[in-house]
Amino acid sequence: MEQTTLERLRAAGTATLATQLFDRGLRSVVLDGVRPLGGAVSFAGPARTLRYVPAREDVSVHERISEPGYPQRAAVESIGPGEVLVIDARRDLRTATLGEIIVARLAARGAAAVVTDGAVRDAAGIAAQDLPVFAGSASPGIHLAFHHAADLDVVIGCGGVQVRPGDVLVGDADGVVCVPGGLVEEIAEPAAEQTRLEEFVHEQVRAGAPLVGTYPPSDEMREQYERWRNE
Amino acid sequence: MEQTTLERLRAAGTATLATQLFDRGLRSVVLDGVRPLGGAVSFAGPARTLRYVPAREDVSVHERISEPGYPQRAAVESIGPGEVLVIDARRDLRTATLGEIIVARLAARGAAAVVTDGAVRDAAGIAAQDLPVFAGSASPGIHLAFHHAADLDVVIGCGGVQVRPGDVLVGDADGVVCVPGGLVEEIAEPAAEQTRLEEFVHEQVRAGAPLVGTYPPSDEMREQYERWRNE
Amino acid sequence: MEQTTLERLRAAGTATLATQLFDRGLRSVVLDGVRPLGGAVSFAGPARTLRYVPAREDVSVHERISEPGYPQRAAVESIGPGEVLVIDARRDLRTATLGEIIVARLAARGAAAVVTDGAVRDAAGIAAQDLPVFAGSASPGIHLAFHHAADLDVVIGCGGVQVRPGDVLVGDADGVVCVPGGLVEEIAEPAAEQTRLEEFVHEQVRAGAPLVGTYPPSDEMREQYERWRNE
Amino acid sequence: MEQTTLERLRAAGTATLATQLFDRGLRSVVLDGVRPLGGAVSFAGPARTLRYVPAREDVSVHERISEPGYPQRAAVESIGPGEVLVIDARRDLRTATLGEIIVARLAARGAAAVVTDGAVRDAAGIAAQDLPVFAGSASPGIHLAFHHAADLDVVIGCGGVQVRPGDVLVGDADGVVCVPGGLVEEIAEPAAEQTRLEEFVHEQVRAGAPLVGTYPPSDEMREQYERWRNE
Amino acid sequence: MEQTTLERLRAAGTATLATQLFDRGLRSVVLDGVRPLGGAVSFAGPARTLRYVPAREDVSVHERISEPGYPQRAAVESIGPGEVLVIDARRDLRTATLGEIIVARLAARGAAAVVTDGAVRDAAGIAAQDLPVFAGSASPGIHLAFHHAADLDVVIGCGGVQVRPGDVLVGDADGVVCVPGGLVEEIAEPAAEQTRLEEFVHEQVRAGAPLVGTYPPSDEMREQYERWRNE
Amino acid sequence: MEQTTLERLRAAGTATLATQLFDRGLRSVVLDGVRPLGGAVSFAGPARTLRYVPAREDVSVHERISEPGYPQRAAVESIGPGEVLVIDARRDLRTATLGEIIVARLAARGAAAVVTDGAVRDAAGIAAQDLPVFAGSASPGIHLAFHHAADLDVVIGCGGVQVRPGDVLVGDADGVVCVPGGLVEEIAEPAAEQTRLEEFVHEQVRAGAPLVGTYPPSDEMREQYERWRNE
Repeated sequence: MEQTTLERLRAAGTATLATQLFDRGLRSVVLDGVRPLGGAVSFAGPARTLRYVPAREDVSVHERISEPGYPQRAAVESIGPGEVLVIDARRDLRTATLGEIIVARLAARGAAAVVTDGAVRDAAGIAAQDLPVFAGSASPGIHLAFHHAADLDVVIGCGGVQVRPGDVLVGDADGVVCVPGGLVEEIAEPAAEQTRLEEFVHEQVRAGAPLVGTYPPSDEMREQYERWRNE
Repeated sequence: MEQTTLERLRAAGTATLATQLFDRGLRSVVLDGVRPLGGAVSFAGPARTLRYVPAREDVSVHERISEPGYPQRAAVESIGPGEVLVIDARRDLRTATLGEIIVARLAARGAAAVVTDGAVRDAAGIAAQDLPVFAGSASPGIHLAFHHAADLDVVIGCGGVQVRPGDVLVGDADGVVCVPGGLVEEIAEPAAEQTRLEEFVHEQVRAGAPLVGTYPPSDEMREQYERWRNE
Repeated sequence: MEQTTLERLRAAGTATLATQLFDRGLRSVVLDGVRPLGGAVSFAGPARTLRYVPAREDVSVHERISEPGYPQRAAVESIGPGEVLVIDARRDLRTATLGEIIVARLAARGAAAVVTDGAVRDAAGIAAQDLPVFAGSASPGIHLAFHHAADLDVVIGCGGVQVRPGDVLVGDADGVVCVPGGLVEEIAEPAAEQTRLEEFVHEQVRAGAPLVGTYPPSDEMREQYERWRNE
Repeated sequence: MEQTTLERLRAAGTATLATQLFDRGLRSVVLDGVRPLGGAVSFAGPARTLRYVPAREDVSVHERISEPGYPQRAAVESIGPGEVLVIDARRDLRTATLGEIIVARLAARGAAAVVTDGAVRDAAGIAAQDLPVFAGSASPGIHLAFHHAADLDVVIGCGGVQVRPGDVLVGDADGVVCVPGGLVEEIAEPAAEQTRLEEFVHEQVRAGAPLVGTYPPSDEMREQYERWRNE
Repeated sequence: MEQTTLERLRAAGTATLATQLFDRGLRSVVLDGVRPLGGAVSFAGPARTLRYVPAREDVSVHERISEPGYPQRAAVESIGPGEVLVIDARRDLRTATLGEIIVARLAARGAAAVVTDGAVRDAAGIAAQDLPVFAGSASPGIHLAFHHAADLDVVIGCGGVQVRPGDVLVGDADGVVCVPGGLVEEIAEPAAEQTRLEEFVHEQVRAGAPLVGTYPPSDEMREQYERWRNE
Repeated sequence: MEQTTLERLRAAGTATLATQLFDRGLRSVVLDGVRPLGGAVSFAGPARTLRYVPAREDVSVHERISEPGYPQRAAVESIGPGEVLVIDARRDLRTATLGEIIVARLAARGAAAVVTDGAVRDAAGIAAQDLPVFAGSASPGIHLAFHHAADLDVVIGCGGVQVRPGDVLVGDADGVVCVPGGLVEEIAEPAAEQTRLEEFVHEQVRAGAPLVGTYPPSDEMREQYERWRNE
């Protein structure tokens, strides 16, 4: 995946990407209930998946995190530059899925972002770091209270959306969209084009144009746009 | 409806109005789960209703929004100055109900506010505009992914509250209250009076007065208030 | 309960306390869905409990709050310096549980904080006060619309957690943790120690250390920490 | 409370009672999500309340039920003939609130019914007994896994409805209604009358009468009813 | 719409129809949470829609149902033979949407079925009638406690699915499926064919055939089926 | 795992097992919202896990089930005699997870039961078969509408409970309990003993014994029980 393609997706933004995917028959691509923590920094990157299941008192004990192979730790230590760690926490917000030390380690390894449909802890500390973190909420609990890391690099659900390893996640102030790996190249250019068109449309509407004929644009409006774009 | 009456309702604020309506037997007037987006700007205005139903793949397609009569577009293009667009989105937050271009058009037409129990997209762009927007959340999806505009100017539910065309919606940092059209004139003055009284009470409490005898005020405290108000 | 112990708990923070309690077999100690209103000011103090039940039209009327013995008012007027008023509102956010005048009175009486799993009204006014208020949301409704104060100083549930009179509630940006009264002394020192250790670990990770061997720390890392701490 | 009054309420049935209460301004009297277990046997009797809070690992241990004063056991051993044990379990269905042995003891003591907005266990055994049991579901867990009995004979919420000691609970195939103690005498006769009227109306409608003029009955239809009733 | 087409849809059953619609790109056609009351009698018929909004204390009063034009009553009195009354009750189960007298009137008018995503009251009486009634639950409350009939013959949502006047609703033990009006003719024959094929497949599997090659059938298995069908 | 051990667990029943596990520190072992379909037949057997994720329109297409390796089909075709197929469907009931043909195949292969926290279709046909099926509800939709089989034989969550391959699932009229593999042998005898004791206790209570001293039994009562058991 080329960096310029990712950059185009990031620049286009989640709303535009969701529309492009909708036009290709994909309605189930917006992660529900996943919001930016602190200042919303936009990102785009390939998904590295981590799956949690409900905790159980006999196995979900503190010693677990001392095992190097414990999937939560293994995921962090195998993340590559530009990758997005995405966690399936079954939208259970009763306890955190990770905290600031793990975020610090992900930042050190060059991760592009963290996305979880669970909560995070040390929210103030995380918000003070540069790495974009998108979560369902903040909660101070240790993840093992209600979560248990099961495996990594498998297809998961996050925010009610299927996320497959290799898909590209894109996030901004509106939330997070999952772009299926096979569609990344196909929609990068149309998305950029749609962004330009909507910038033009927005300008027209602010100047008093009615929606009809402008958004979506009529043939005439589209011609005006072409001229505007070529300038 | 006179502008001064609306201004009085806006100045009284939602908490005071909810209490006034409660005292007239109305408990179901506070829109649940509808929060101000960005800086909370208060507003008051008559409701223009727009109703969404769940999307269905055969009819909820992108071409829909090219039809001038499509209710989402018709609602926007028929909104009048000072009116509040209020959307029944069944509290389904999985996708947006509108975005910044539609908000820009509503602002251009002089709308007083937008209220939706669904989500909005382009949240950053919307927050940067002056029009107050109250919603359930932000989400980047196109509304047709899970919503379909059905009709306008009918009685709807929004945030679990019945809203009838002609009712007055009032919003501020606490949320949104629906004032039934027939009660608007009746409660404007009592609401303003209650606001003044609570300002006085608040001052007393900050100065160390106990709740008993102060809030609600005893006869003696009420006399003190009368004097305070007349100054 | 000594003030220094409470201060140690507050300084340790909710994430650390949740971990300490987890290590003693307590998973159900983090109040779910209770978030700081406005700027998050941390606090720690013994719980004074107030219990709400659903409102019923025949008894949940405005006159109720004129009765000095009405539990909502009695709770406020009996709160002592450093105590935390904690309200069981069944996580019902459709109306408020209290507003800014009551918060002002609690502040005047020296309360340490207010915690409710319901909503609060006058959210802007509350955020402008110094008293930390943690709630499920903001809502303008009067509490009697859907709540009814039942009694005080009984064991309650708040945010899905059992809270007993005498327990210590601690809050910060991550939310609120309930420390059972009998464990307060026991965990104060280990919590402080854990905080120091994690500060060191965080520093190591920021400097590039991998999680394995650092978090949790190996024997060697622990020795380094001892040296670091002693400096 | 006279037995004949209770019998009239039981015979009138929950739908009729809910309507009578609605006509007196009471909308919040139907327990939500509480269904008859096994064959629905109707009942009416005064409420004996039992309140549960969330379990906590340090106190919600098996030894609790060996204490004679533990509220779950004390409630059962103090129930009187004709009384209804009603449990506030916060609608948490993850574990049971009681099982067949406790139901057997309640039956032996002459209880009229058990109502819980939580679950029950030994559902097959309970359904085989004669005592009417209304619950949210069945679940095999011991109550201490997620519940903890807090106290008895206090005002509670059950199925989202405020239930006060002394209120009368009435149940049948439709569910359970709470009749406030002060209204029991007042509505017994109108409820019986409404039942007779609806029996007549039902007969007319089955014979082909349209709703208009029949339900609610016109003056003419009401005269026909008077004649029918007097026969 | 021909009666034989409706009969074919009914005979094919909801599972088969849901699959046929899925194969045409329609995922959102199964009404969620709508279950048969009493013995499940299957049905198929065109939808007559009735829309409820949340009740409000000032307008949702008992007098409403004395108005002939009140949509709940107007809907019942305009239903035609073979039609299905379908009610959008926003899945709010706290009170009923209708009771046995209205069901009796619908039966007298020849309705094919009643479908509501709310509750019904007089559940025992309704189950004793012949008219198939599908609902979310039973509840004894009068509909005006939390519902208010708004209008009829408009596009609605029911069980999370868009239902348009003219669509065909089909129900059986599995629940209810909405067949868009424009697809009724198109899928009747393929659905009948699929039913026959699955009957054959089921027979093979019961006789020990593995799923692979049988379900879905291989070319060879399909040939066997053709022979089986022609016998 | 010996068959006699499984039989002992089945005979003890889910309520007894849940108590035994609670006494060993396990609260999170009861599958929430999973109920027997049709007549409740009890079962016990080792878990074979199947995991579903949310469907996505580009990959969750009908062709999927023609692939022999598709996990839903592979799971069925690899199930062994006495094993229990348990499906993690994220408690999403909007569509089925399987239907009667798959149940027929599982029965043919000797499976002990099917457990899913999603829905099943062909509910009437399934109820007519002998294989115990426990599910969240019935729904006619094809699983691919909202589900997608991801993998098998991994640790999953089902009904909010962690289920690991090798655990033993036990079900009866109360629901389903997960017995961790490592505890199976340990609790079989105590569970059988508890069942006998509770049979005795139940008999005492039916004969008029109070709870105190009987349930839990006093030393004296325990002696009586020993004599009763030895007869």
